[in-house]
Amino acid sequence: VAPVAPRPGAVVTLRPLGVHEARLDPGGLLGRWQRRNAEDTIPHCVDNLHAHGNIANLRAAAGESGDAFTGMWFADSDVHKTLEGAAWELASSPGDASLRSFVDDTTALLARAQGPDGYLNSYFTVAAPDERWRRPEWSHELYCAGHLVQAAVAAARTGVRPDLAAVARRFADLLVERFGPGGAEEVCGHPEIETALAELYRLTGHRPYLDLARRFLDLRGRGLLGPGRFGPAYYQDHVPVREAAEVTGHAVRQLYLLAGMVDVGVETGDHTLLDAAERLWEDAVHRRTYVTGAHGSRHRDEAYGDPYELPPDRAYAETCAAIASFQWNWRLLLATGRARYADEMERALYNAVAVAVSLDGRRFFYSNPLQSRTGHTGSGEEAQARRLPWYSCACCPPNIARLMASLHGYLATAAGDGLQIHLYAAGSVTAEVAGSAVRVDVRTEYPWQGRIELTVTSEADTPWTLALRVPDWCDAYAVRIGGGPVTAPARDGYVRLTRVWAPGTTVVLDLEMPVRRVTAHPRVDAVRGCVALARGPLVYCLEQADLPPGTVLEDVRLDPAVAVEAGRREDLPDFPVVLTAGGRLAEPGASLYAAAPARERHGAPLTLTAVPYFLWGNRSEGPMRVWIPVAATG
Amino acid sequence: VAPVAPRPGAVVTLRPLGVHEARLDPGGLLGRWQRRNAEDTIPHCVDNLHAHGNIANLRAAAGESGDAFTGMWFADSDVHKTLEGAAWELASSPGDASLRSFVDDTTALLARAQGPDGYLNSYFTVAAPDERWRRPEWSHELYCAGHLVQAAVAAARTGVRPDLAAVARRFADLLVERFGPGGAEEVCGHPEIETALAELYRLTGHRPYLDLARRFLDLRGRGLLGPGRFGPAYYQDHVPVREAAEVTGHAVRQLYLLAGMVDVGVETGDHTLLDAAERLWEDAVHRRTYVTGAHGSRHRDEAYGDPYELPPDRAYAETCAAIASFQWNWRLLLATGRARYADEMERALYNAVAVAVSLDGRRFFYSNPLQSRTGHTGSGEEAQARRLPWYSCACCPPNIARLMASLHGYLATAAGDGLQIHLYAAGSVTAEVAGSAVRVDVRTEYPWQGRIELTVTSEADTPWTLALRVPDWCDAYAVRIGGGPVTAPARDGYVRLTRVWAPGTTVVLDLEMPVRRVTAHPRVDAVRGCVALARGPLVYCLEQADLPPGTVLEDVRLDPAVAVEAGRREDLPDFPVVLTAGGRLAEPGASLYAAAPARERHGAPLTLTAVPYFLWGNRSEGPMRVWIPVAATG
Repeated sequence: VAPVAPRPGAVVTLRPLGVHEARLDPGGLLGRWQRRNAEDTIPHCVDNLHAHGNIANLRAAAGESGDAFTGMWFADSDVHKTLEGAAWELASSPGDASLRSFVDDTTALLARAQGPDGYLNSYFTVAAPDERWRRPEWSHELYCAGHLVQAAVAAARTGVRPDLAAVARRFADLLVERFGPGGAEEVCGHPEIETALAELYRLTGHRPYLDLARRFLDLRGRGLLGPGRFGPAYYQDHVPVREAAEVTGHAVRQLYLLAGMVDVGVETGDHTLLDAAERLWEDAVHRRTYVTGAHGSRHRDEAYGDPYELPPDRAYAETCAAIASFQWNWRLLLATGRARYADEMERALYNAVAVAVSLDGRRFFYSNPLQSRTGHTGSGEEAQARRLPWYSCACCPPNIARLMASLHGYLATAAGDGLQIHLYAAGSVTAEVAGSAVRVDVRTEYPWQGRIELTVTSEADTPWTLALRVPDWCDAYAVRIGGGPVTAPARDGYVRLTRVWAPGTTVVLDLEMPVRRVTAHPRVDAVRGCVALARGPLVYCLEQADLPPGTVLEDVRLDPAVAVEAGRREDLPDFPVVLTAGGRLAEPGASLYAAAPARERHGAPLTLTAVPYFLWGNRSEGPMRVWIPVAATG
Repeated sequence: VAPVAPRPGAVVTLRPLGVHEARLDPGGLLGRWQRRNAEDTIPHCVDNLHAHGNIANLRAAAGESGDAFTGMWFADSDVHKTLEGAAWELASSPGDASLRSFVDDTTALLARAQGPDGYLNSYFTVAAPDERWRRPEWSHELYCAGHLVQAAVAAARTGVRPDLAAVARRFADLLVERFGPGGAEEVCGHPEIETALAELYRLTGHRPYLDLARRFLDLRGRGLLGPGRFGPAYYQDHVPVREAAEVTGHAVRQLYLLAGMVDVGVETGDHTLLDAAERLWEDAVHRRTYVTGAHGSRHRDEAYGDPYELPPDRAYAETCAAIASFQWNWRLLLATGRARYADEMERALYNAVAVAVSLDGRRFFYSNPLQSRTGHTGSGEEAQARRLPWYSCACCPPNIARLMASLHGYLATAAGDGLQIHLYAAGSVTAEVAGSAVRVDVRTEYPWQGRIELTVTSEADTPWTLALRVPDWCDAYAVRIGGGPVTAPARDGYVRLTRVWAPGTTVVLDLEMPVRRVTAHPRVDAVRGCVALARGPLVYCLEQADLPPGTVLEDVRLDPAVAVEAGRREDLPDFPVVLTAGGRLAEPGASLYAAAPARERHGAPLTLTAVPYFLWGNRSEGPMRVWIPVAATG
């Protein structure tokens, strides 16, 4: 089965499909991304794990070399995440010999690098044996263990390398012994182990893993980690998880923790965990999420900001946080069946996640700002105005690898008397519904067009329900079945079509996809007087490359009196749909501050081209902005 | 003489007054600050140097204890800066026994802590002797040495402890030996030594000090420091100082470096250094300075941002940077005589510097944002919404101490045939002008009122010129001499009154001081649609304390149709002039993002009180904002 596989007894509303029950068509956008991930991103990650010493670190831990440890102390996690991605991909592409050998070699290496007691962490084995388990606020030991577990779960669920689970279990058993009931009362500074142990429980049915995950959640928020450099809220240790009212601190840590809270909540039936997660979702999504679905407003501590503190230029918007949000929302969707979580997955996927990787699949953003100014200088790798091949802290590229390789697992669910399609992509899903095999083939140019054509093949002779999500951005849509229009009001975000499905029945869902001018809540001071252009799930942006030479992007205004049109530009083949808008060029004075504001003066009109945000930076490194100031009129 | 005392041969336009030639009346605002500094801030700093181990570190370095080093590795600099402040103050208050004993004891302690070779740094002596001189990008060794030198210069110029100069010279001689011609080609990661050595040259006339300062400038920008954590631009080592086109990196480092460039430039007659400093001034002031005169837009590296990146909420605006800007502008003013530098001193002093210290003189901001949101959380001490008594990195409080203790030295200059008054404050200045003694007594309630009354006492029987600055914020003013109006057009920012001054002649300068609505350059996206209220040199702000209970500050709008009035509120005795404005309360919806913007809806009007920005946070810790969104009208 797919990433996140609740046990039969879990308190969930929806059930994921199996890993072979969904498929992305490589002709569609998501399928093409997945293909690129297989052909470029994963091999690129593997190459870089070799080039940057991650593999050598494990060899040293296995006693096979005397090399010194290199890289970040949590470098093993990059290996684990790449391995997880490779495992998911190998299930789809079993004939890929190079992928096969990476999975086989790495699994064997991890087994050799593991200590007799089950411990497996090359940094602490090679470079700092005396520090083992002694620096929980900083060490990332359980974080790395968590990613090992997730790799093992993927390798086992897909069947590509079930024996990796034995390595993970040896380590997990050590954790249960050390941190379980009666053991050390500690938590890890970087959450991740919680969701991983819940998944390992799901794979194995071994209850102590779930109990340990819960114990880690229960112990959190009691100040066990100490203040650290950024205070206990940085790693969500300032308040018990069930009592938290706001997302705080390091965004990736917060989001991984929330994923674990949902996992443990649904497996144990502990509603207080799910309630807390939904409460924090509302805080995050209603007060601290970028229009791209990105999380994290502050560079200093890679953290959430104050409510409505959402600067587009200094957005931290870490790639890993967008991925974590996607994974967390999937868990909430399974738990509750609420469309808002699928909406959030879609928003993050097509914007905050997609922007992180280049068209060639081999360069990545770590931070994904919504504005890059003329004259931008960034200090530090995460402030680059361009995608880089790799990072000294390389958490993001392998995270993309594992998400994209498992992406088909997030399209649809089966539950109750039906099949639910949450994300639209060319491909197909199969499932057992009401005791019978069901198949739905999807043809669509989504997200470029709003028409989704589905062909239902069902052997069931009883009625079942095909639920189709109507995205939150969509105000009008039409449904036809077998060519004939049907009245199908969306309820709670889904059109639900219930019938005995004759084999080959066609369903067409037409989502109207006008250009939207999006405004932010007025407390978001950073984008006052601006709009973002969006169409369907895609946020658009202006790039310097589309402006007349010499134009300063910061002086461009959107003319609100001119309609924004969507269309194709033949000279931009990588941008299937661009937007054309009316612009004005402001003519600012020289003074940084002036008394007695006059109305801004504007020069001649110009035509603006907006391109999908996720595609920016593939032509040049010039300035970019999502939020466009609107010219004052009248 | 005063802080910054160019040698007779220096290429400067203006000459500072002597340290006893200017005096602040404690009844005026600046005089009251200076009194508070003497009575509260300096003793508070001394207490904290004892409480936090700074003094103990020096005792350990002197071999008088076996205590371990505590605090930051550059903790000595806090001692040096406090000592500098104490020296300036002791010159004004020679009867202060407690100050006297601090100066005496500390001078003696520093002499004992100094090594036989002249080296003096308690961290490297006590905690890391093997690292001495080995970590220039990080060590702050020359930075600490620079502050020792500045303390010694103050103690010698004022005559309160001339023998401290011997300590400083022993260390400086070691630096000349090690880093001088033929010596190590190194620079310090934190500039400061350059301006300090120039000042030591001014004090002693010993040319090798100036040559070494120039050598450090010449060696900078050649990559000697390596990339470090934030890249070479962080410590201005990315480009030779004469070629820099933009201020970059850590703001305090940049500004101290610029001070050194001006000092060396005027003493050596090297115009390329002054040209570069003026070029960077234009970049800084026209593109990267807050309306409060504060510098530094980014928390992560305490650094300048991109051009026009001036977020009010995440303004770093370090206190030390504001002080450094004040000191740098003073040097530029002396060098060029251009009013724009005095304007900038005034802006920084009354806003960015003044805000850093509480009304009781014993609590301080490290970072001085222009907005603190409802629900603000800061990670790290520099993100507090309230002033703290002390900091683990305590650079700012003693920096305030030394500036305020020497503040009278920055009021006026004497040069050519006259006296120039740059900053208006109740007090008096004396100087020798055209060979005769001259005295000007100043009565004013500035900055609360724009009337400045001067009484000139002159023994000169030849004409000389009294130059009075007309601040850049002032559009209209009137001058009367001896009660009669005179026509006196300002030229280059100064009204110049030339005559044979009969003893006791009164001059009245009336600066009109209407409330100004200040707007920012439209490229400053962060404050689009907002105005700042200002009157005279003071920037104002809204504080939660002045809003009706339950009002969310972020929802307050300024009603542009209502006049803003200045006046006194009897219930706010600490705020001599407050502003009263018309407000509207926005009624935002719940959505963070919405399509199709409607015009913002507003509820009932309310009356807003704006208080001087520098006084915020003295009543409560509630939200605050300088930039106020303007209600859309029409």
